[in-house]
Amino acid sequence: MNIVLLEAEQTQSEFWKIESPRQLQHLSQHVQLNAGDTLKVGIRNGQRYLTEVVTISEQHILLRPIQVEAVPAKLPVHLILALPRPKVLRRIIMDAVTLGVQRISLIHSYRVDKSYWQSPFLQHLDDYVTLGLEQAGDTIEPEIQLYKRFKPFVEDVLPTFISDQKPAYVAHPYAEQQMPHAIQHSCCLIVGPEGGFIPFEVDLFKKNGCQARRLGNRILRTETAVSHILGRLFI
Amino acid sequence: MNIVLLEAEQTQSEFWKIESPRQLQHLSQHVQLNAGDTLKVGIRNGQRYLTEVVTISEQHILLRPIQVEAVPAKLPVHLILALPRPKVLRRIIMDAVTLGVQRISLIHSYRVDKSYWQSPFLQHLDDYVTLGLEQAGDTIEPEIQLYKRFKPFVEDVLPTFISDQKPAYVAHPYAEQQMPHAIQHSCCLIVGPEGGFIPFEVDLFKKNGCQARRLGNRILRTETAVSHILGRLFI
Repeated sequence: MNIVLLEAEQTQSEFWKIESPRQLQHLSQHVQLNAGDTLKVGIRNGQRYLTEVVTISEQHILLRPIQVEAVPAKLPVHLILALPRPKVLRRIIMDAVTLGVQRISLIHSYRVDKSYWQSPFLQHLDDYVTLGLEQAGDTIEPEIQLYKRFKPFVEDVLPTFISDQKPAYVAHPYAEQQMPHAIQHSCCLIVGPEGGFIPFEVDLFKKNGCQARRLGNRILRTETAVSHILGRLFI
Repeated sequence: MNIVLLEAEQTQSEFWKIESPRQLQHLSQHVQLNAGDTLKVGIRNGQRYLTEVVTISEQHILLRPIQVEAVPAKLPVHLILALPRPKVLRRIIMDAVTLGVQRISLIHSYRVDKSYWQSPFLQHLDDYVTLGLEQAGDTIEPEIQLYKRFKPFVEDVLPTFISDQKPAYVAHPYAEQQMPHAIQHSCCLIVGPEGGFIPFEVDLFKKNGCQARRLGNRILRTETAVSHILGRLFI
């Protein structure tokens, strides 16, 4: 947690109040705060501030905003991800948000177990986004959409995301061309499930305007692949 | 698991035998193997083979090697990592091995809790390496060393790793210069604990021949940072 993210309604008066048990616990365990110390605070989908700690109690911390700070820029990337296993979902959403992904689409694919769509973890996407923003020092939530049917998504929705200025790259270990690096334009990045997309799916992506690109000779776990490819694409 | 890693002594006769419960369970759950199918197999610290499945039982799978396959090249990088929290250690070692890191040094630092050095997880580094190799399709174990004292490591050991051809980069959010990208030479990559290295530590690294380099304006978790930086350094 490198900033504390507050809701807009918590920042309406002269003094702002941290009262979430999770945030209070983190601060008491990891940061030895005293009255007069400064603390970085973000307003969800708003600005970021340096604040001064006014009072500290077990129930809340009272802050006074001092000055506005810059919010880090997003990466111009729309991550399109086969829905990961519930256990991995939290980390992968948190990491994508931390790294500054602008928009996330979670899609179905042949090797995504249908039960994943019923996972209670899917009800907590907002929490994972909050953790990612607090890690990165960012305040702006990415848009997240779910698409439970593969073919209609690839044929009808995906083409509306793609343009000459915004190509779509499917990470695919058996593609002929290498994933580009240090690009200067925006893109869609499509990452498959564990076990990868099946050949029919890769073909359908290609037919609908996507470019399959490989990553060396090593096969990565989904969560490793996302941060690895983003490190390669945007320098 | 993209190859099955066997020990050299399991591959001495004409037929090779998979008998590890972990490997048998993975294959029965995720791969519908039949006699006559091919299976990718690596020999620890040896070659990689395409094999043919001869017989399958609950206790073992018998294989016959067909042909030698290429082992993916390592990245020319020595990862020097502040010992992570035990829960994170497994994933981070597995990922570093999957990505092809040649050598790993786990070091102490001010923000590494001393109790981490007593963690039973440290007894299982070999298992995490095996998982990483099986994920990547690699067979060659990286060398892993532990250094429980920060200052003697940085002053006496680290300089022996560094040369003009092999610089050392400390990932540090507040450095002035950006981490390089698409390098054509080998390097040491030094990544701190959660909360980062303290200023004294960063200074000591610099005094001993290291270059502090930052990564944009976002602060990443250790495990995200490792795969992200490797994606950026080696394309």
